[in-house]
Amino acid sequence: MKNELYFNINEVVDATDKLVKEKDTIGYYDLPNQDITYIKNYLKKFDNKDIETIVIIGIGGSSLGIQAIYDFLRYDENLTKRMVFLDSTDPLFLKEMLESFNLVKAHFMIISKSGNTIETISIYKYVYQKLCSLNLDLKEYFTFITDEGSNLQKYANNEGFNVVNIQANIGGRFSVLSSVGLIPLALAGIDVKEILSGANEVKKEFFNNGEINQTLQKKASFMASHFDKHPNNCIFAYSERLKYFVSWYVQLWGESLGKKQTNSQLNVGLTPIGLIGPKDQHSFLQLIEDGPRDKSITFIKVNDFVSDLKVPDIKMKFLEGLDNINNLEFETIINMQADSIVESLLYKSDIPVDIIEIDHINERSIGKLIYYYELLTSLVGEFLGVNTYNQPGVEAGKKILKTKLQNILKD
Amino acid sequence: MKNELYFNINEVVDATDKLVKEKDTIGYYDLPNQDITYIKNYLKKFDNKDIETIVIIGIGGSSLGIQAIYDFLRYDENLTKRMVFLDSTDPLFLKEMLESFNLVKAHFMIISKSGNTIETISIYKYVYQKLCSLNLDLKEYFTFITDEGSNLQKYANNEGFNVVNIQANIGGRFSVLSSVGLIPLALAGIDVKEILSGANEVKKEFFNNGEINQTLQKKASFMASHFDKHPNNCIFAYSERLKYFVSWYVQLWGESLGKKQTNSQLNVGLTPIGLIGPKDQHSFLQLIEDGPRDKSITFIKVNDFVSDLKVPDIKMKFLEGLDNINNLEFETIINMQADSIVESLLYKSDIPVDIIEIDHINERSIGKLIYYYELLTSLVGEFLGVNTYNQPGVEAGKKILKTKLQNILKD
Repeated sequence: MKNELYFNINEVVDATDKLVKEKDTIGYYDLPNQDITYIKNYLKKFDNKDIETIVIIGIGGSSLGIQAIYDFLRYDENLTKRMVFLDSTDPLFLKEMLESFNLVKAHFMIISKSGNTIETISIYKYVYQKLCSLNLDLKEYFTFITDEGSNLQKYANNEGFNVVNIQANIGGRFSVLSSVGLIPLALAGIDVKEILSGANEVKKEFFNNGEINQTLQKKASFMASHFDKHPNNCIFAYSERLKYFVSWYVQLWGESLGKKQTNSQLNVGLTPIGLIGPKDQHSFLQLIEDGPRDKSITFIKVNDFVSDLKVPDIKMKFLEGLDNINNLEFETIINMQADSIVESLLYKSDIPVDIIEIDHINERSIGKLIYYYELLTSLVGEFLGVNTYNQPGVEAGKKILKTKLQNILKD
Repeated sequence: MKNELYFNINEVVDATDKLVKEKDTIGYYDLPNQDITYIKNYLKKFDNKDIETIVIIGIGGSSLGIQAIYDFLRYDENLTKRMVFLDSTDPLFLKEMLESFNLVKAHFMIISKSGNTIETISIYKYVYQKLCSLNLDLKEYFTFITDEGSNLQKYANNEGFNVVNIQANIGGRFSVLSSVGLIPLALAGIDVKEILSGANEVKKEFFNNGEINQTLQKKASFMASHFDKHPNNCIFAYSERLKYFVSWYVQLWGESLGKKQTNSQLNVGLTPIGLIGPKDQHSFLQLIEDGPRDKSITFIKVNDFVSDLKVPDIKMKFLEGLDNINNLEFETIINMQADSIVESLLYKSDIPVDIIEIDHINERSIGKLIYYYELLTSLVGEFLGVNTYNQPGVEAGKKILKTKLQNILKD
């Protein structure tokens, strides 16, 4: 993984110590070198089970990260099970999803830190009833991943269901490398050790003041100190496999940094925008090129797709103007497209650009990307002066919903 | 369809006349009442053909609108064929997509206004060779949708392939109601007459100065005059079926409005952000609630999902706190969630909010939504003082790519 910054920042305050200090209360930092015995023990229970589909019943931090990794690795040779994500109360979506796999050969993971998530519990109740009506042994079908001591754990223990606890002090959007992500991914066949190993490489390089430390501090300083000039950050990822990774990033970035500043109570934050190339060259690019200079752009490129798919050498009458693509590999084309857009933006000089390159589409790369973005978020939050790890703003809507639900009961 | 605005705009300059004047050079206005004989004639050719999959080879304006409608109506009883979209040069994506359907029972639509789109032609060449290797009669497998007189038309005519022209003066991102969208959707079994009829209802109401005229003018005036205070507009749609509609909106909005102002050469524009509820309540919402006040939010709600899916009446020990969702229909829950978030934002008073309600998920609704957003875009473009219909900013990247391709040939 390489990250080149095409912007200048003069003064960088080193915040590594601040991150080190947080380790007592913020659990995600130490996940890359966690003991994974609990995963091995969990997998043993399923040694002889014929599972086709793993169904994630969770929303936000309890599904986005899992989906990001699953989708990135979906053609991995180790992947033996399909995953389905039930992350909406949309009735048409739920019906469609539940008809898309064989319930009898599924395993359901109910993931909720608090156990009070309305989407998760309502979908769980629906699935619970459906499995009851099929006279299945429910103990075989459910795993609950939740905080130690939550009501969801109490419920699941009381019913005799599988429970895996989330490590201490892990916020939802920083939980993908905890049991929340690793348990379902490991059951699907993914080599989670490799994911952690990639993350750990970034961790060591950062905390040992390696190159990535300097890069991340510079990038975070720049983004935080220019938050009023460039309040939006776009990730422009040139791989369809990063589609859900950018959704994960949108949550991580938006929910961590969109806050009242701790001291001033000022509304600050950086708005995340996820783009996929080359598709969004035909959509969002015009706005980047000619619109307001309120965006910084982070390109993500895959150096080697390990594919030999190429444009055949066919000349076509009247289409001779495009004969120069003949014989080119598609991976050459997509990366040339990315390079061309980068060049067009650098030429403009008032649009901050940086480029992240990953070598391959594999477990190590996604582990690195995830940990890189988590560190970046912590640093930007530190420099912006916000509490990176809470989400007080979403409480108002929840309270109103609660009142509406109570009023319905009264009627 | 209803649209309620929760913000005040004092002065509204009526721009209806400006839009009427554009009709000579901007073709999309009159698409809702087009003569659809050409579609009926086209369909006749396929009367006895056994087609399972329609494959769209197109990108940007040549795929986003089709995908928006297809995905919205994907469980429509009329829909008899699956659609697949080949809209990336990502080699892994192309391989995966091409393995996901039976080539022999597919029909390929190559859609490009100019015929010079590098993604479209490179994918077409690849598919062409694949079909050749299967010894199929290619004339049965391809339809080309392109501008009259384009090189792509000349090529297709020369080979004896099906060609359908795009109506005059239709830009890519305003083309979904032209042959670009209607031909593939009609072949898939969608009732395109109903889509046009929905669009025509909005058209008539707007140009006859009905209620929607006032609403659209107010909304456009507000958004244009506040473009520096609220440079971002989010659509927060509470239906998974609108996932691709919001992608279509991102292109329409971003590419139409992100421009140098015609008179001042100032970089202006409004940044579109597509959100899906309730999922994004667990992701982007915190940023809206507590972050900078640089966003206006348009909610889209479906009044009736025509679904009786409900939460079963099961009490669960330790989870009694959520018993009040028992017996509720999921469509009640999702709409209560939307209402709760709207209420939480209105309470803040410094975040502009408006709500669009559609009655059902059907052809008429999507026709209305599309035409509503096209008119809104034209109005905002008018008020912002930009050329809504060009995209000069994307040329720089294309030129650089062209040079790179020429250099490769020289090597």
